[in-house]
Amino acid sequence: MDKSFILINLKTYTEGAGQRAHAIAGAAEQVASESGAIIAIAPSYMNIHPIAMHYALPVYAQHVDGENPGAHTGHVTAESLKMAGASGSLVNHAERRLTLAGIEASVNALRLEGLVSVVCSNNEATSAAAAALAPGYVAIEPPELIGGGVSVSKANPEIIRRSVEVVKSVNPSVTVLAGAGVQTGEDVKIALELGAGGVLLASGVVKAKAPIAVLRDLVSML
Amino acid sequence: MDKSFILINLKTYTEGAGQRAHAIAGAAEQVASESGAIIAIAPSYMNIHPIAMHYALPVYAQHVDGENPGAHTGHVTAESLKMAGASGSLVNHAERRLTLAGIEASVNALRLEGLVSVVCSNNEATSAAAAALAPGYVAIEPPELIGGGVSVSKANPEIIRRSVEVVKSVNPSVTVLAGAGVQTGEDVKIALELGAGGVLLASGVVKAKAPIAVLRDLVSML
Amino acid sequence: MDKSFILINLKTYTEGAGQRAHAIAGAAEQVASESGAIIAIAPSYMNIHPIAMHYALPVYAQHVDGENPGAHTGHVTAESLKMAGASGSLVNHAERRLTLAGIEASVNALRLEGLVSVVCSNNEATSAAAAALAPGYVAIEPPELIGGGVSVSKANPEIIRRSVEVVKSVNPSVTVLAGAGVQTGEDVKIALELGAGGVLLASGVVKAKAPIAVLRDLVSML
Amino acid sequence: MDKSFILINLKTYTEGAGQRAHAIAGAAEQVASESGAIIAIAPSYMNIHPIAMHYALPVYAQHVDGENPGAHTGHVTAESLKMAGASGSLVNHAERRLTLAGIEASVNALRLEGLVSVVCSNNEATSAAAAALAPGYVAIEPPELIGGGVSVSKANPEIIRRSVEVVKSVNPSVTVLAGAGVQTGEDVKIALELGAGGVLLASGVVKAKAPIAVLRDLVSML
Repeated sequence: MDKSFILINLKTYTEGAGQRAHAIAGAAEQVASESGAIIAIAPSYMNIHPIAMHYALPVYAQHVDGENPGAHTGHVTAESLKMAGASGSLVNHAERRLTLAGIEASVNALRLEGLVSVVCSNNEATSAAAAALAPGYVAIEPPELIGGGVSVSKANPEIIRRSVEVVKSVNPSVTVLAGAGVQTGEDVKIALELGAGGVLLASGVVKAKAPIAVLRDLVSML
Repeated sequence: MDKSFILINLKTYTEGAGQRAHAIAGAAEQVASESGAIIAIAPSYMNIHPIAMHYALPVYAQHVDGENPGAHTGHVTAESLKMAGASGSLVNHAERRLTLAGIEASVNALRLEGLVSVVCSNNEATSAAAAALAPGYVAIEPPELIGGGVSVSKANPEIIRRSVEVVKSVNPSVTVLAGAGVQTGEDVKIALELGAGGVLLASGVVKAKAPIAVLRDLVSML
Repeated sequence: MDKSFILINLKTYTEGAGQRAHAIAGAAEQVASESGAIIAIAPSYMNIHPIAMHYALPVYAQHVDGENPGAHTGHVTAESLKMAGASGSLVNHAERRLTLAGIEASVNALRLEGLVSVVCSNNEATSAAAAALAPGYVAIEPPELIGGGVSVSKANPEIIRRSVEVVKSVNPSVTVLAGAGVQTGEDVKIALELGAGGVLLASGVVKAKAPIAVLRDLVSML
Repeated sequence: MDKSFILINLKTYTEGAGQRAHAIAGAAEQVASESGAIIAIAPSYMNIHPIAMHYALPVYAQHVDGENPGAHTGHVTAESLKMAGASGSLVNHAERRLTLAGIEASVNALRLEGLVSVVCSNNEATSAAAAALAPGYVAIEPPELIGGGVSVSKANPEIIRRSVEVVKSVNPSVTVLAGAGVQTGEDVKIALELGAGGVLLASGVVKAKAPIAVLRDLVSML
């Protein structure tokens, strides 16, 4: 997979909702076009369809359930994401943990729909376990660094290096993303040098006054 | 509140997804217009915005979380539902149970956005508890009858009558809906005679060959 | 019910495990005998049987599931608590939230075994909802004060007063306990003056150097 | 590890509670002594201490949480299991699923206390993922066969063989147990021939009129 995958998680931030979601999507589309990087965006479920329609960039869900279509009120099926135009989904984000059986079912359901799975993990052991499920990506995010001002690339580069190592040893076709506190091009560069294939970030872009400036910085050292 | 509120839950049925969701919404809009009944539809999250834009009927979410906007990946906030054009949300459906604290937070978050809450309950005691949270509606659905071929109106009319009684005794401004197995105008009529203000149903409409015929039957005895 | 019910939750503190659990139970037994207050203790599941056997005081579980006996690996049934000698159980503690349906099932399962239920709530609305389930007690604990240095009696006496009010209006036979930060006899006295029938506390006793001194202080103004 | 580890899960069956738990433990102790097999028992939390005290056999918990000691009301810590005399714990049983992060934390907490972890899985992919967490055992149990009359050994031997294969490929030091529907010595023999190191079973022993006869049959072909 491409070495420069940047996935922007809008979470449920007000700064990533409504018109602001469109503004960030527009900025991401432009910076992707300028730089050649792949920049994807994970908005609220309700914004998946409009953003997938209006912008030329991959749109991800923030969560998907493993259930098949049926009597599952309030759940999010891979089928419904596909129909809405999504390219993939985060799975097991630190703010939306799933059971192991649920993660496996979600990865599998996405695969059957031709969608990409990004399974989040919290340490090397869970990175290895996630890799055993053969997702598209494993995104290692030390929980204590999520949403903070210091990036995983700087605070704990070893966890990236070791996650890449264990993930590759379990399943060489899985790509690692690094997440938590990522906000600069240097953070991205360090992650890639450590063997990651990209980054997962949220507040660094979503809460920025000028998201396009942050996005340009993120891709500046690719 | 109006005596004839009919809420159609599309769940994650394939028969309630994609074009089929639009077809059911269109049928509901037409039957509502013919009959004067209020017919609302609860599609997948991704279909809330398009259906709210294209059809003149209230659109509900199937679930909402109580969290405020912020770092809550994969959650559904009342704010984001409001922005997407929803009129309200189911809360605590049997297929998406919440903690008591979560139900209360969801009802409150919906209220702050001016949205209607429909809290599902499974027996008289939980109907009374739900009423204490002052939602718009309490929808009593005996779990063993959900998705089955016999309606709550016929299989267990007493649970409707007693739920109305306890709900009114706890909070007279809360309206009761009856759900589980509802599929005919007679089911609706019985529910209203027992004191309910409407019905909640799903497969009876969603899996019907001709949803519009079922919808016309549902309102035929109002 | 008695005006002076004091329930000590040992949580999973190391200071409330092993010999230390027995020491606290022994102290509670002695202070109860000196003062006439009812002091109960909620140890780990594994300590319910030994403490119920060795000390003359009511022993509570910290949690119970609503399931009937059967294929429910890892769950805690009311039947098994009864067999172990428990007198009751906490239900829906802030650190072990249950669904509304689960709370109702737990209260009901305890009642069928002749055990007392103490349902925890986090605000007035959930106190009222809990009361609708007819438990023995509703324990109001504002989450932000749990484990802190300021008691609910002093930081938010109004939440006690209003919880008593709404609980009594929904079900006059339910007694309110006040919890969160409780540590002195004055805290207990204020709670009782506001209409509570007792208190629920944990770290104030469990982490004390001399639990017996704290227990004597707690009952000093009864 | 020994080739003949038999773990009896008493679940919350009435037939595995009270005196009946002691009777099964006594029978297991005797058959273990006669046969040289290792037979362990997983009773309710409340019975861990008495059974560990009175019978010479390893006692397992049915579930453990990953939390460290502290403010975790109603949770089960590895520390508290160790203090009660347990030898290990089931983790992530089909009836008590955990998040991936929770499984990892539980396995780690057990390891730090010198206790054995038996992580349950539902298919080959989750078996591999579980193995990546380096537990003592991975117990593969196809959910559709649990509690039924046909054993995994006969209904789906391939899932045992493939689970052994993937588990060994991820972590050769992890032993596989086979579970779901196991009830005879032939079931055990097939499982061992397929590479498993033992079996996990419940109703076959617990609900038997004469548990000792079933236990003798289970070890008859070792």
